[in-house]
Amino acid sequence: MGHLPQRNAYVTPLLTDYYEIMMAYSYFKCGRSDDRAVFEVFFRSNPFRGEYTIFAGLEEVLKYVQSFKLSKEDIAYVRTIVPSHIEDAFFEYLSEIDCSRVRIRAMLEGSICFPREPLMIIEGPLGVCQLLESTVLNLLNFPSLMATNACRFRMAAGPDKILVEAGLRQAQGPDGAVSASRYAYIGGFDFTSNITAANLYDIPLNGSFSHAFVSSFSGIEDLTAESTTIEGTDILPIALRYRNQLNKDSNIGELAAFVCYAVSFPQNFVALVDTYDTLRSGIPNFLAVALTLEQVGKRAVGIRLDSGDIAYLSRCARQMFAKTASAFNKPELATALKICASNNINEDVINSLNEQGHEVDIFLVGTHLVTCQKQPSLGMVYKLTELNNKPRMKLSQDIGKLTIPGNKEVYRLIGKDDVPLLDMIIRKGETAPLANRRILAQHPFDGKKRVFVTPKIAIPLLTLVWSGSRDDGESVDGIRIKMPSLEKLRAFRDAQVSIMREDHLRSLNATPYKVSVSTSLYTFLHDLWNRVVPIPELS
Amino acid sequence: MGHLPQRNAYVTPLLTDYYEIMMAYSYFKCGRSDDRAVFEVFFRSNPFRGEYTIFAGLEEVLKYVQSFKLSKEDIAYVRTIVPSHIEDAFFEYLSEIDCSRVRIRAMLEGSICFPREPLMIIEGPLGVCQLLESTVLNLLNFPSLMATNACRFRMAAGPDKILVEAGLRQAQGPDGAVSASRYAYIGGFDFTSNITAANLYDIPLNGSFSHAFVSSFSGIEDLTAESTTIEGTDILPIALRYRNQLNKDSNIGELAAFVCYAVSFPQNFVALVDTYDTLRSGIPNFLAVALTLEQVGKRAVGIRLDSGDIAYLSRCARQMFAKTASAFNKPELATALKICASNNINEDVINSLNEQGHEVDIFLVGTHLVTCQKQPSLGMVYKLTELNNKPRMKLSQDIGKLTIPGNKEVYRLIGKDDVPLLDMIIRKGETAPLANRRILAQHPFDGKKRVFVTPKIAIPLLTLVWSGSRDDGESVDGIRIKMPSLEKLRAFRDAQVSIMREDHLRSLNATPYKVSVSTSLYTFLHDLWNRVVPIPELS
Repeated sequence: MGHLPQRNAYVTPLLTDYYEIMMAYSYFKCGRSDDRAVFEVFFRSNPFRGEYTIFAGLEEVLKYVQSFKLSKEDIAYVRTIVPSHIEDAFFEYLSEIDCSRVRIRAMLEGSICFPREPLMIIEGPLGVCQLLESTVLNLLNFPSLMATNACRFRMAAGPDKILVEAGLRQAQGPDGAVSASRYAYIGGFDFTSNITAANLYDIPLNGSFSHAFVSSFSGIEDLTAESTTIEGTDILPIALRYRNQLNKDSNIGELAAFVCYAVSFPQNFVALVDTYDTLRSGIPNFLAVALTLEQVGKRAVGIRLDSGDIAYLSRCARQMFAKTASAFNKPELATALKICASNNINEDVINSLNEQGHEVDIFLVGTHLVTCQKQPSLGMVYKLTELNNKPRMKLSQDIGKLTIPGNKEVYRLIGKDDVPLLDMIIRKGETAPLANRRILAQHPFDGKKRVFVTPKIAIPLLTLVWSGSRDDGESVDGIRIKMPSLEKLRAFRDAQVSIMREDHLRSLNATPYKVSVSTSLYTFLHDLWNRVVPIPELS
Repeated sequence: MGHLPQRNAYVTPLLTDYYEIMMAYSYFKCGRSDDRAVFEVFFRSNPFRGEYTIFAGLEEVLKYVQSFKLSKEDIAYVRTIVPSHIEDAFFEYLSEIDCSRVRIRAMLEGSICFPREPLMIIEGPLGVCQLLESTVLNLLNFPSLMATNACRFRMAAGPDKILVEAGLRQAQGPDGAVSASRYAYIGGFDFTSNITAANLYDIPLNGSFSHAFVSSFSGIEDLTAESTTIEGTDILPIALRYRNQLNKDSNIGELAAFVCYAVSFPQNFVALVDTYDTLRSGIPNFLAVALTLEQVGKRAVGIRLDSGDIAYLSRCARQMFAKTASAFNKPELATALKICASNNINEDVINSLNEQGHEVDIFLVGTHLVTCQKQPSLGMVYKLTELNNKPRMKLSQDIGKLTIPGNKEVYRLIGKDDVPLLDMIIRKGETAPLANRRILAQHPFDGKKRVFVTPKIAIPLLTLVWSGSRDDGESVDGIRIKMPSLEKLRAFRDAQVSIMREDHLRSLNATPYKVSVSTSLYTFLHDLWNRVVPIPELS
């Protein structure tokens, strides 16, 4: 629970929208900076036309909240951007504020979550809580979107496939990439290609070589004795012999590249096989080198397909592996060799490959994963729900777009077969749903949609994660949870997803999971609505 | 040309894909690290179904190249991730390399550019140039995509509208947001909402307030004397009087919020008018406060529409402004007040608003701009085109996907009315296209597509931007251009776009701009293709 390093230098109180400062000044001006506010973070619909979302980014938010303090330089800069009439007292106020009077409850990082339920509730002085808005959303929106996207890839690929994130070159700048790696791992990927991300977050690395590497070799004249010898054995003549047996017309530059790479990484030989011709050159050359490695007691890992018809090519490759394994009396090779696919892989491609039948063991995913091409934004919002103990709601002619007012709790009600039945939002202070007690769950807006539930367990979903001061008023460090390792976050996410009914997780036309409100919250919401929304008049 | 600060701490030689290190080791292993390589950065198709792209990110690349040096800590980390058999000599090699022997030619930042032409050519030792790949692509891909997207918004909105970038909360993490602001400005936006971006890059700031601000006021009891006084005048009674004249049923909490904000920022009063009811409450309350401000010698800026039918509401708002201006004898108000729209604005929405007719002066754009929702990746690649003076090409059964081999130059041929006719790629060393000299321009792949061009001017598009050492071998600082200010980059981008024929810039069904090759490059490419691509045999 000590002070965690703030890793990204951009994450300061000034990583915010200008209007937050302007509002903070207006609150200050009318003496309301210390009004007791309750803000709530939620989203209105699941991304990727799916029916679930993974909540992520909490650790970054807590580090930000912990370090929230405007420096002298920050304040000097703010002075330059606001109108000159603004009083010194406001800058003094800015220099004093921090999150010591803020309390935050949130879902745990890696939780499965659903539209309209509070993911994070921030309580504290109006001015400070307002200033946190943009940054908190920045630190939650993309991470949650990424983790959800990664989780969907994992669901599509199934538990046994290996997933490698390789999105550095397409991500939104350096830390778009670094955070993509982090949240892809939480979401269910196994490896990253990004060394900085691996270094920061201890994610396993994966990689082999590119087309440039292959095309940099014209022939065996590009090899030196040094680059063809494994533990004293010159493997080049062996590889050439196998090549002549497999396909003597394969590209010789490609073979040289494979030999050089296999000598460099005899335990990690994954060959990119599509530089010249996958079936006629790449795979025969790979097999020549794989058989060669066997002779010196090493085992090749496999091939990477980066173009063409992945379903077809992967099946051909598997057949060629089997044929060669049998011809050269190395039966283990038929199944041991892995096939990696890396060309424009997305969730739909994986689903389609599954339908066609394929032999891919490893998916290497870049663009579609890190840019979340299918839907590149999540749309979490940060809304005021209570002020000085009075409920606040953002109204809308469209009842579906309004904010559910008041301070809240959320429970996940688990059924007798340990499967979540629905989530229920209740008013803070109201009696929590109890195990084995029948309770009415209502749709927040549609009075006709109601259901009785008798949960086996009712799990509160919001945990106190930050409290700047103890209840006795003494200030403490603030972070109230032990930050789990990335490995634990990943396992928690996996556990959260795997207890859900499968039809909620389907890629296409999934069943929406119910998010309900208690009768008390339902009545509260609709009474308030009827009281404050004027009935329009037609004339 | 001094040493520029490296602003993002993540941008180090380890912000790269693992396979770059693995390839660097293999090159080292076969003694080829110092082979003379030429790599080229290009893309295959324009983003957003358009016919042009803006090249951006150059300054960040140059800062990266300048600081490229593996630290002791970097190397210690690399040791932990590579197999244990790797020789110490390789780590020594890693500790010694930098970009002092690298030369980079590139298009200038803000250039308009097209598919298949080299945007950047990197020459130098094979090992070092390979290690630059992933980072260079990360530093160019998103910036260019963003600048192009922003430019398309600018083209759609027209030169007179004000464009505000407000994407912090949806961007890919902290510096996804910060770079989005930078490249949106280069691409043609006028303001950002992001204070950190404004601070780093000196971009003008814009902002007002949110729904939370409005809904935090229940009524005039939330105001203090301090918060209703402008230069000694209590404006609340005045505002209440106007409100009674305009619509006495408007929401009183909303009026209180507007009064407080107008007192806080009398010169920057932009009111968000859709919290309760845009036409019946928001706009009347805004006009009440705008008229009040007039009485104390201040002028309101305008309103912000954040929901509903923007075309319709903006026209109604303009009519209400006009009617009120006339009724209260303040004719200037009718046109002086601005209308800002901010709900889910994208390029198509702006085009559709233009067709319907609208009165919006300011577009505030978040999600669709910074996530490039229409197409969130550009797909620049980094390909080896020459090694030790011998051409290299990545082959493909599909001729359209191959790499044009060899070291190159690119020229933009300008016609007699100063409009670009086409771009021509030539072999490096070949005679450049000359002014007033007729020349044959060929499609790189389709021999039937040819055109004679007599340019008025032929402008070389690649500039030497980095050379680690002088031609006399002495090492210099490296960066060979003066880095333009952001303002200059923006103006350059504008100039580049505005000389293009309009039909290349259209939002829908634009005419492709021709990128051709010289006869010499055409012949060179096709001879090489015929020589190295085996004719498949059917049997």
